[in-house]
Amino acid sequence: MHAPHSIRALPALALLALLAGCSSGGGDEEGVIHGGEASLVLPTLDNVSTAIGATGHTLLIIGMIICVCGLGFGILSYSQLRSLPVHHAMLNISELIYTTCKAYLTKQGEFLMILWVFITVVIVGYYKFLVGFPWSRVGIIVFFSLLGMAGSYAVAWFGIRVNTFANSRTAFASLRGKPLPTHQIPLKSGMSIGMVLISLELIMMLIILLFLPREIGGACFIGFAIGESLGASALRIAGGIFTKIADIGSDLMKIVFKIDEDDPRNPGVIADCTGDNAGDSVGPSADGFETYGVTGVALVTFILLAVDDVAMQGLLLVWIFAVRAAMVVASGIAYAINHAIAGRKYREAKEMNFEAPLTSLVWLTSIICIIFTFATTAAILGNGEDGLGWKLALIITCGTLAGALIPELVKAFTSTKSRHVRETVKSSREGGASLNILSGIVAGNFSAYWLGITIVGLMAVAFGISTQGLGDYMIAPAVFAFGLVAFGFLGMGPVTIAVDSYGPVTDNAQSVYELSQIEQIDGIGDQIATDFGFEPNWETSKLMLEENDGAGNTFKATAKPVLIGTAVVGATTMIFSIIIGLTDGLTENVENLSIMHAPFLLGLILGGAVVYWFSGASMQAVTTGAYRAVEFIKEHIHLDSSSERASEKDSRSVVEICTQYAQQGMLNIFLAVFFSTLAFAFVEPYLMIGYLISLAIFGLYQAIYMANAGGAWDNAKKVVETDLHAKGTALHDATIVGDTVGDPFKDTSSVALNPIIKFTTLFGMLAVELAVGLTSMGYGLTVHIGAGIFFLIAVYFIYRSFYGMRIQTEISE
Amino acid sequence: MHAPHSIRALPALALLALLAGCSSGGGDEEGVIHGGEASLVLPTLDNVSTAIGATGHTLLIIGMIICVCGLGFGILSYSQLRSLPVHHAMLNISELIYTTCKAYLTKQGEFLMILWVFITVVIVGYYKFLVGFPWSRVGIIVFFSLLGMAGSYAVAWFGIRVNTFANSRTAFASLRGKPLPTHQIPLKSGMSIGMVLISLELIMMLIILLFLPREIGGACFIGFAIGESLGASALRIAGGIFTKIADIGSDLMKIVFKIDEDDPRNPGVIADCTGDNAGDSVGPSADGFETYGVTGVALVTFILLAVDDVAMQGLLLVWIFAVRAAMVVASGIAYAINHAIAGRKYREAKEMNFEAPLTSLVWLTSIICIIFTFATTAAILGNGEDGLGWKLALIITCGTLAGALIPELVKAFTSTKSRHVRETVKSSREGGASLNILSGIVAGNFSAYWLGITIVGLMAVAFGISTQGLGDYMIAPAVFAFGLVAFGFLGMGPVTIAVDSYGPVTDNAQSVYELSQIEQIDGIGDQIATDFGFEPNWETSKLMLEENDGAGNTFKATAKPVLIGTAVVGATTMIFSIIIGLTDGLTENVENLSIMHAPFLLGLILGGAVVYWFSGASMQAVTTGAYRAVEFIKEHIHLDSSSERASEKDSRSVVEICTQYAQQGMLNIFLAVFFSTLAFAFVEPYLMIGYLISLAIFGLYQAIYMANAGGAWDNAKKVVETDLHAKGTALHDATIVGDTVGDPFKDTSSVALNPIIKFTTLFGMLAVELAVGLTSMGYGLTVHIGAGIFFLIAVYFIYRSFYGMRIQTEISE
Repeated sequence: MHAPHSIRALPALALLALLAGCSSGGGDEEGVIHGGEASLVLPTLDNVSTAIGATGHTLLIIGMIICVCGLGFGILSYSQLRSLPVHHAMLNISELIYTTCKAYLTKQGEFLMILWVFITVVIVGYYKFLVGFPWSRVGIIVFFSLLGMAGSYAVAWFGIRVNTFANSRTAFASLRGKPLPTHQIPLKSGMSIGMVLISLELIMMLIILLFLPREIGGACFIGFAIGESLGASALRIAGGIFTKIADIGSDLMKIVFKIDEDDPRNPGVIADCTGDNAGDSVGPSADGFETYGVTGVALVTFILLAVDDVAMQGLLLVWIFAVRAAMVVASGIAYAINHAIAGRKYREAKEMNFEAPLTSLVWLTSIICIIFTFATTAAILGNGEDGLGWKLALIITCGTLAGALIPELVKAFTSTKSRHVRETVKSSREGGASLNILSGIVAGNFSAYWLGITIVGLMAVAFGISTQGLGDYMIAPAVFAFGLVAFGFLGMGPVTIAVDSYGPVTDNAQSVYELSQIEQIDGIGDQIATDFGFEPNWETSKLMLEENDGAGNTFKATAKPVLIGTAVVGATTMIFSIIIGLTDGLTENVENLSIMHAPFLLGLILGGAVVYWFSGASMQAVTTGAYRAVEFIKEHIHLDSSSERASEKDSRSVVEICTQYAQQGMLNIFLAVFFSTLAFAFVEPYLMIGYLISLAIFGLYQAIYMANAGGAWDNAKKVVETDLHAKGTALHDATIVGDTVGDPFKDTSSVALNPIIKFTTLFGMLAVELAVGLTSMGYGLTVHIGAGIFFLIAVYFIYRSFYGMRIQTEISE
Repeated sequence: MHAPHSIRALPALALLALLAGCSSGGGDEEGVIHGGEASLVLPTLDNVSTAIGATGHTLLIIGMIICVCGLGFGILSYSQLRSLPVHHAMLNISELIYTTCKAYLTKQGEFLMILWVFITVVIVGYYKFLVGFPWSRVGIIVFFSLLGMAGSYAVAWFGIRVNTFANSRTAFASLRGKPLPTHQIPLKSGMSIGMVLISLELIMMLIILLFLPREIGGACFIGFAIGESLGASALRIAGGIFTKIADIGSDLMKIVFKIDEDDPRNPGVIADCTGDNAGDSVGPSADGFETYGVTGVALVTFILLAVDDVAMQGLLLVWIFAVRAAMVVASGIAYAINHAIAGRKYREAKEMNFEAPLTSLVWLTSIICIIFTFATTAAILGNGEDGLGWKLALIITCGTLAGALIPELVKAFTSTKSRHVRETVKSSREGGASLNILSGIVAGNFSAYWLGITIVGLMAVAFGISTQGLGDYMIAPAVFAFGLVAFGFLGMGPVTIAVDSYGPVTDNAQSVYELSQIEQIDGIGDQIATDFGFEPNWETSKLMLEENDGAGNTFKATAKPVLIGTAVVGATTMIFSIIIGLTDGLTENVENLSIMHAPFLLGLILGGAVVYWFSGASMQAVTTGAYRAVEFIKEHIHLDSSSERASEKDSRSVVEICTQYAQQGMLNIFLAVFFSTLAFAFVEPYLMIGYLISLAIFGLYQAIYMANAGGAWDNAKKVVETDLHAKGTALHDATIVGDTVGDPFKDTSSVALNPIIKFTTLFGMLAVELAVGLTSMGYGLTVHIGAGIFFLIAVYFIYRSFYGMRIQTEISE
C-alpha cells in the first residue's frame, strides 16, 4: 500500500491520518461476534472522524448546507405550485384524488409497520443476542431502520401531495392554449420531489456519518438502508399492483363499451388516477430515495472495509459526499439553465415538442455533472503523479454517461417513432392481438440484449480503469469501480426523479380535465375570463394534454432501466461486505466464491427461480384484482345517461378492490422474499452469495425486458390513437390488449425488482451474519433446521401467492 | 488417491490397471499445444484401451450388440407401421405431407453444410495450425464432426418417415371405433424413433472409444459432439420457426373466418402438417440425439481429465456405457410390459384415458431403469467398503427421478385439469385476451420457480452424496455428480423421445382425417367394409383423435423441460474440461473462477443478454413470417365453395413462406451465436466460462417459462373447445390469442435453447483453446483484435435479426 496519498487541497488530513494510523487496529473489537471463531464484521466508523479531519468536516458541513438549500428549493416549489391559479372544478377533482391517495397511503403505513416488526426481530436477535450490544445501542439501530422506512414513506407523501397540486394546475394552465406552462408545471413538481428526496437522503446519511456515536455508525447505516429498502419494496409492490388493477379495469372498458379512457361514467377512473400516483409517483419516489441511499451506504461500507490506509479512507469518504453534493448543485443549475432556454424558446410558441426540453435537460445535467465531478475530484483528491483523481472521476463518468445513454437506448424500443413500436402496430394489422403481443415481447427481448451489453461495456471500461493502479489503495478495486458506476448512474438523481415524476402528473392532468367536465359548466368561458383573465381554448388544451402525456410515458419508460441498472451494478459492491467478512478480508475461503464450489453454483441457479416467481406472483395479484374490478365495473357502469358521473360509492368500491388485492399480493410476496432470504442465508453463506448475484443479474434482464415490452405496447396503442386516428377499430382493440398486458409488465413486476434485489441483499447481509454467528457459537444444527423451516414458510407463501390469489368463481359459470 | 479400486466383477482389470499405470504419464504429449507456455489439453484416449481391459472390451462389445438389437427393434417397428392397413385417401395425404417434409429437409441439409463450413474452419485452424496434427488426422476429426451432424440429420429423416407412416395409420385405425390402436400406433412410432436414435448414438460413441486411433479419440469425440449439436441447433431453430409460422397462420383463420383448424380450404393446413413434423418431430429427434450424445461426451471427458488412476478411469468408462446399454434394455422391457398391460386393459374398451398408459410407461421405465442402474453398477463397480457403487447409482437415480418427477410437475401448470390452466380460462371470461395472456405468463413464471427449485434440490442431493468420499477418486467430484444427474435424466431416453414424438403423430392424424375428406367419398362405408372388413365409426373416430391429440400435447409439454434440464445440469460437466485446461488441473488460476475476478462476473451478466436476444430473434422470425402467411392465406382462401380444397399451388406457396423465413431467421441467429461465442472466448477465457454458466442458467429458466406458459395457453384453448364446447365465442377467440402467442414460446424459442447452450459450450471449448493457444504463441494482440472483430460481426447479425426481419409494409397502408 502507498503511504498516505499526496494531498493537495486538504493538507491537514496528512497529519491527522498519521495520528489515526497509530490508533488504528485497536478499534476493530466492537462489532465482532462473540463466539471465538466468528469472523464477520460489520464496519464501524471508529477512525472515520479522525480520518475525515477538520477540513473534511467543514466540507461535509458545507455539503449539508447545500442539501438544506435543496430541501428549501423543493419546499419553495411546493408552495409555488400550490398557489398557481386553478378553477375549482378541477381543484375538486385533484383534491378528491389526493383524498383517495391519503387513504391508500395511510393504510400502507399501517402495513409497513407490520413488515417492520419482522425486520426488527432479526435486527434485535443479531445485535442484542449475538453481538451483545446493550439495549440502548440496539434501540438506536432499530430506530434508524424505522427512520429509513419513514424516509421512504415521507418522500412518497411529499410526492403525492406535490403531484396532486400539479395535476389540476397543469390541466388548468393548458386552457390558455400555450404549451409552455403545460410543460413547466409537471417538471417543476418533478424537480421539487427530486430535490427533496435526494437532499433528505444526503442529510440523513451525513448525520449518521458525522454526529452519531462512532461505534454504532456502521450498524446504523445498515439499519437505515434496510429500513429504506423495506419501505421502497413494499410501496413499489403494493403501488404497482394497485395502479395496474385500476388501469386494466378502466382500459378494458374501451374494448367492451367503446368509451374513452377517462369517461366520468366509469367508476374505475378515480381508482386509475389514484393508481397513477400510488404506482407511478409513490413507487419511484420511495425507490429513488432508497436507491440513492443504498448505493451510498454500499460505497461507504466498501471504503471502510477495503481501504487499509485510514487517511485514504477519510479522503474517499469526504470525496464521495462532496461529489454527491456537487451533483445536487449541478442538477439545480442544469434545471435553471434548461428552464431559461425553454422559456425563451417556447414562451410565445403555439406548439412544442414536449420531449425536447426533457431530453435537453437530461443531457445538460449529465454534462454539468461530469464537469462538476472532475472539478470536485481535482479539488479533493488532487491528481498526483498516479492520477488517482482522474481515474476515479472517469469511472464515475461511465455511470453518469450510462444514466444519459440508457434513456436514449430505451427510446429505440419504446418511443412512438421507434421501429419496434411501428413493427408492433404493423403486426397487429394482420395478426391482431396475437402478433401485437409477440412484437411487444420481441421489443422487450431485444432491449434486454442491447441494454445489457451496454451496461456490461461500461462496467468493463470501469474495470479496465480500476486495474490501473487502484489496487495500491484498496483490495478488490474492481468492486469499488462497479460501485462508483452505480453511483454515477444516479448522480443526476434529482433530474432522473424529475423526468420520472413528469409522467403521473401529465397522465393525471388529462384525467382531471375530463373528470371535471369543465366544458359543460354553464357560462364557463365568461367565468374564466372574469376570474382568470383569459379565454379558454378547449380543443388545443385537450390535444396538448394528450401529447404531453405521450412525453410523460416516454420518460417514465426511460427512467426505469436507470434505477434497475444501479441495482445490478451496485449489487456487487453491497455483497462485498459479506464477502469480506466471510473470507477475512479475502485471505481465506476465497475458493468458495468460485463455481467449483457447488453451493455457490447452486446459489447462482436459485436467483432465477425467485425472479421468475416474483414476476408471476406480482402479475397474478394484478390479474385476479383486475378480474374483480372489471366484473364490478361492468355491473355498475351506467352508460344510458350520457353526462352523468359514476357515483362516489361505486368509485370508492373500485378503490377498495384495488387496495385489497394490492395488500394481499404484497403480503404474500414480501413474506416469501423475507423467508427465502433467511432460508438461503442459513443453508450456506456462499450459496447465499451466489443467490444474491444471480438475483441481481436475473432481475436486471427481467426488469429491462418487462419495462420495455410494456413501453412498446403502450406507445403502439398511442400511435394507433393519435397518428392513425383509429380509436374504436379492431386495430385499436388489438393494441389495447398489448397495452393492458404491458401494464403489469412495466409498472408492477419490472419496477419492483430493483428494491426487492436491494432489500434482499441488505437484509441478506444481516441474515448471513446471524447464521455464521450462530454456527460459530456451536448452533450449527439449529441453523440448518432453521434453514429448512424458513424454506418451508417461504414455500408456503409462494404457494399462496398463486393458489391463494386465484379468481373466486367457477369455471362452468 | 486410492490404489486401484476393489473390483469384484472384473478382476482382470486390476492387473491391466497396474500395467497401464506404469505407462501412464507418458501419453500426455499428444494434443498439447506447441507454443511452450500453453497449458490447454483436450483429452486423449491414450491409456483408455489398456485401462478398459479385455473384460471391459467384452462388456462394451455386448453393449454394442444390445444397441444393434435396439436398432433392429426400430427398423422392425418401421416396417410393421408401414404395413398397417390404411385407406388410400388418407395415405395420399400422409404421403403429400412426407413429400413436403422431404423438400424441407433436403433444403435444410444444404444449409447445414454451409454452417458446417464455419465450424470446420475453426477445427482445422486449431488442430492443423495450432496443435500441429498432420492433415490425415485433422481429416478424421473433421470427418467426425460431419458424422455427428449427419447423425442428427439422419435421425430427423428417420423420424419424419416413421411419423408420416404412423399418422395416416392412426387416423385409419381410429375408424374401427376402439381407442387402443389409436394409442398404440403413435407410441410404437415414437419408440421406434427413440430406440433408433439412442442406439445409433451409443454405437457411434463406442466405435470412437474402441476402434479409433487412441491419440485422436478425444478430439474425435469433441468433433462428433460439435457436429451433433450444430445439426440439432439448426434443425431446432429452423423447424421451430417453420412450424409456428404455419400454425399461427392456420389458427388465426379460426378467429377471422370462424373455420375449423384443419379446414381443407385453408391453404395453410398442409404447411401446418409439415410444420408439425419439421418442428415437433425433426427438432426433438435431433435434439434428443445430440443431448444424449453430448452428455455422454461430457462424462467421458470428465473421467479422462479428472480421474487420476488409470484403472479407475477404465472402470468408470465401462460402467458409464454399460449403464446406458442396460437402460436401453430397461426401456425396451418397460415398453413391452406396458404394452401388454394396456393391451389387456383396453383391448375391448370403447373409451380410454389416453394419458394413463403414457404416464404408467414413464413411471414403469424409471423404476426399471433405477433397478438396472443399481444392478449394473453392483456388477461392474462392486460395493466395496466405501460403497462407491451405491453412491454413484444413487446419484444417477436423482437424475432418473427428475426425469419422472418433472413431467408430473409440468402437468400442474399445463394439463387441462390443472388449476393454472383453469385460471387462464376463467380470467379470459371477464378479461378477454388481455387477462388470458397474463394468466398464461403467470403459469410459466410459477413453473420456472417450482421446476428450478426441484432441479436445484436434486443437484444438491447429488452434491451431498458426492462429498461422501468421491473425492478420493477424482478431483471436483461435484462436477461428476452433476454430470451423472444429467445422464440419469436421460437414462430412459428412448421412452422420453417416444412420448415426445407421440404428439406430432396424433396432431397429424387429426389433420389427415380432415384433409382426406374420407367421409365424403361415395360409398365409402361399403368400400371399407369390403376392403378392410369393418364398419367405419366416423363420430367416435373424430372424438378419439381429438382427445388423443390432447394427450399428445401434454406429453410433448412434459418432455421439453427434461431436455432443457439436462442442458444446465450437464453444462457444468462440459465446461469442466475448459476449466481443467485453464487451471492446469485446478492447481493454478483457480481464483479466476470467482466473482471477485471481474471478467468472470461480467461473463455471468452476458449470458442473460444472449438468452433474451435469442428469444426475441426467434420470435421475430415467427412474427414476420406469420404476418406474411396470414396475409397470403386471407387473400387466397376460397370459402364460397364449401367442399373444395385449397389448390396445391397455394398450399405450396405457404410452405415456401414458412421455409423462407425459417432459413433467414436461422441464418442470422446461428451466425450471431457462432461469432458471439468466438468473441467472448477471445476476450478472456474466464469471461467465457462465466458466459457459458450464465447461458445455461438463463436458458434453463427462460426455456421452462416459455414452454409451460405455452402449454397452459394451448390447453386453456382445448378446455374451451372440448369441455365448454364454446368454439366460435368471444371466449374461444381470447384463448386462441393465448394459444398463438404460446406457439413460438413453447415450440420455437424454448426448445431451441437446449441445443444452443450445448453448441455454444462445445464450440466454446474449441474457441477458448484457440484463443489461449494463439496468446501463448505471442499473438495476444491479434486475439484481442479478433475478439473485437468477431463481436462486431455478431452484433451485425443481432441487429439484422430484428431490423433485417421486419414486416415489409408501410404503417399507413
